[in-house]
Parts: sequence; C-alpha cells; structure tokens
Amino acid sequence: MRVAFQGEQGAYSEEAAYQHFPAVETVPRRTLREVFDSVAERGVDAGIVPVENSEAGSINQTYDLLLEYHHFLTITGETNLRVVHYLLGQPGTRLADVRRVYSHPQALAQCDAFLRKLEADQVPHYDTAGSAQMIAAERRTDAAAVASRRAAELYTLEILAEEIQTNPQNYTRFLVIQTDPVPRADPSKTSVVFGALHKPGALYNAMGALALRGINLTKLESRPARRAVWEYVFYVDIEGHSEDPKVADAITDLRAHCAWAIVLGAYPAGATP
Amino acid sequence: MRVAFQGEQGAYSEEAAYQHFPAVETVPRRTLREVFDSVAERGVDAGIVPVENSEAGSINQTYDLLLEYHHFLTITGETNLRVVHYLLGQPGTRLADVRRVYSHPQALAQCDAFLRKLEADQVPHYDTAGSAQMIAAERRTDAAAVASRRAAELYTLEILAEEIQTNPQNYTRFLVIQTDPVPRADPSKTSVVFGALHKPGALYNAMGALALRGINLTKLESRPARRAVWEYVFYVDIEGHSEDPKVADAITDLRAHCAWAIVLGAYPAGATP
Repeated sequence: MRVAFQGEQGAYSEEAAYQHFPAVETVPRRTLREVFDSVAERGVDAGIVPVENSEAGSINQTYDLLLEYHHFLTITGETNLRVVHYLLGQPGTRLADVRRVYSHPQALAQCDAFLRKLEADQVPHYDTAGSAQMIAAERRTDAAAVASRRAAELYTLEILAEEIQTNPQNYTRFLVIQTDPVPRADPSKTSVVFGALHKPGALYNAMGALALRGINLTKLESRPARRAVWEYVFYVDIEGHSEDPKVADAITDLRAHCAWAIVLGAYPAGATP
Repeated sequence: MRVAFQGEQGAYSEEAAYQHFPAVETVPRRTLREVFDSVAERGVDAGIVPVENSEAGSINQTYDLLLEYHHFLTITGETNLRVVHYLLGQPGTRLADVRRVYSHPQALAQCDAFLRKLEADQVPHYDTAGSAQMIAAERRTDAAAVASRRAAELYTLEILAEEIQTNPQNYTRFLVIQTDPVPRADPSKTSVVFGALHKPGALYNAMGALALRGINLTKLESRPARRAVWEYVFYVDIEGHSEDPKVADAITDLRAHCAWAIVLGAYPAGATP
C-alpha cells in the first residue's frame, strides 16, 4: 500500500502512516494539496493528513481541502499520534549558540514556551523534517530545528533538547483519505460539513438536528465561506456511522435546517489518547 | 494616542489603526504577544490585533492571547479593513525571475491562487511589511514579497502585480484592546469565551442560552482547551451589549450550561463591508 504524506522523510505525518497501516510504503509530497492531488489522481492508494493538534488547534488548510476535493475523495480513517518534539542541531552546536529555530509553524506553536525561554528567533518552514534536513545540508551551527527523534537519525543531527513541547500530552489527529470508502468497523465516526442559513439561531437549529437525537459531537470547526464576507461553513465530527438510521435521519434533518450539507466520510474511530 | 501593532511600518495592522482612530501614533511590535504585553504594561494606550480574515480564517494566536490576557485587557472596538495585496520586488525585477515569495502565512494563503500560477516557492515570514523590508535590504532580484501598496512606497520597491488576493472582497477584522472599557455606543457587540461541559449536547445547550433569547451569533470559533486532549473552548461574538438585560441574562444562563464563561469585552460594532 502506497500512502502519500506532506513533508520530508522523518515527518510526523510519515510516523502517523506507520502507526495507522500495518505495512506501508510512504510517499513524501511537498504540500498538503499535492497529497490530495496524488490520491485523487490515483497515483497512491491513500493519503494521510494532519487535521488538528491538541495544543495548536486545527490545520485550516486540511479542512479547506477536504471540502474542495470531496467529489474525488472520502475520509476512511483517523489516527491519534503522540507528538514528541526535539531540538536538533549540527553535532557540536551548543544550546547557547542557537539564534534561530526552524520548523513548521504548528510545531513552533507547540513548543512556544520552551522557545520563548531560549530567546531564539522562530522561523517558519514548510516541514519539521525538512527544516532538520536544511540545518544538516547547510551545516548551520547558529540554528536548530524542531523535529522528531527519527529526523535526528535520518539527517545525523544531535539532540540539543528533548521533549520540548509545552504540553507533554501533545497529540495530532490525522485523517486518512482515499477514493473509495472502507468497510464499516464500529465504533464509527462521521464527518460532515454544512453551510448555515443566514438568519438568527441558524447554527443552533442546525445543531439541534444532531443534539436532539442524542448524537455526540466530538468536534466543531468553523471556516470562512468565502462566498460572502463574514459567512462561515461548519465542520462537525459525530459519533456513529452515516448508515446508522439515527445518523442518516439526523443528516436529512440537518439538510432541512441549513443551506447545504456534505458527508466527508464515515470511518472507524481511532483509539483515543 | 499611542497604539501598538504587530509588524513593521506599512503592515496592514498599522493601516487598520489609521482607519480606526482619528489621530494616532503607531508603535510597531515584533509579535502579537508583544502587542498584548505593551498594552497590559500600559506602555501604550491601546493595541490593534487581527482576529480573522474573510478568506484565510481565524488568527488562532489572537484568540489564545485574548483568553490568556483577559485579567489585564478588554476588547474596546473592532474594525474591518479591506486588504489589497501587491507583489513587490526590487526595481527591475521581472515576474518571470521570481523564484521565492515571502510574506506572512495568512497573506500567502489569501493569494494562494495567484502564487500557485506563478510557480514560485511560498516562504512564510513573520510580517508582510517585514518581508518587503527584507527584499529591499538584501537587494534580492529572484524573490518578491506580498505586502501593501504603502510598503512599496516605504521600502522603495516596484509593484510587480497588483490586487493579487484570490477574492477581491478580502477583509481582515481587527480588535482593539485596552486596559479599560470604553463608553457604550450602540450597536454593540459582546465577545465571550466558554468551556463546554464534557457531556453529549453540552455545546448545543450552551448555545441555547443565546439562541432561545433571539440573540444573534456573528462568530463561533473553537480552540483547544489544552487541559485535556480533544477538549475545546468556544469563542462567540454576539450582537448586543453585555449590560443589556437580555444579554446579561443570557450570559448568566450560559454560565449555568457550561463549565465557565468569560466576557472578553463589549464594544461598538464596526461598520460591516
């Protein structure tokens, strides 16, 4: 099975692929959009993309791409990865020499407390492992990268500090995307996106379609609708499978209470931390 | 009146300060946290911070800082700024020479369609105007910055392309933060953050405290609670002033239906686009 992920070898997304699939060949892609494209064009069997982190919050672009590609792709799984960050530098670099720290903005945000104490500039980079690779390639001794332990091994860097994430319980939730749905395996989750009507109480009434049936919401995220300024679309994750009569009824009712609703996928719920 | 903003001279936040205040002395700060600190320590009279963009969505860090600093600060105003992006380069640079484009990640996201067609690498930088300043200082001819027309003038750069934002109706909403509340001037808005109870229907019941009183919600944003993995806090903006009996009742009722609720400010509603 070939699975695309965003970033370089040693990225947390690649670790998530190894955690989720028993046997897998990982395929690096530079951007999240390229991961979605690779799956849609059937260049790979699946993609694995980060959707939220327990410290830094949602990965907005993933939400936008799930909607943009919903005609071609469906969510087929989720996995929660415990993310442990390390500060990596060229062998011989001392912590006091580090002037700039490179990493993905989400990783920098997750280590904000440590990095502020270090008093180094935080420089956003497109990938955690990619920033480690860059430090190694350019032989920088005034800079370091926030990345995984595996990135230290892959790019022969030294661990300058370990477990530097602000919250030791730092988890990233990843979604698996494929062109076709997978067989049902309960407990299931269903992800839905909908556009609220433009009238008072619209969101409350839409959520009533779920809540009044006792359907549990595990996540609610809003994103700009872009059709008009300060209008939003809402992403909800609910417990249950879209083929459950109760969930199917709720989605029908939701459609009656909002502008439109799209099921992004029904999939086996991942083990929770 | 001295008003702190994040970024360098020529940043959109500075433009927002000029739009919001009749007469103002702007004070640049490197990070959003430094803007909050400057206001809390009374080094300036106010701060102005971006909270959401109509294309790229919420500025997560602003939401987190509003909660973190709520003992010291209150929201006293909002302003919607139309954001027009320009691609800026050294005089003489041709569009075809541009290999890398620097800007704030939010600005890059707002120009994603144009930048993908340009086929240049998108490099995140801490500030729009700061990236223009950097292109000018380093005399780069293979790179460009996404920034304002005013940044072009300030840093003597050439406009390589204008109005490059994906959506011509591209607005950023800014909040004004101060140590003390301002006199009421209706129409007002009130911003509240609350922690939902950990049981099914909790968010729906909390929102009922507002919806069942006919109070209109103009924004709902979720952020990680960080206390526990996959728990959230919710930020709502509502129409009306926290001293309106109806709004005050609703907030009392909201407190009964959630773990905790904090009023982040009541302020005159800004003109909507």
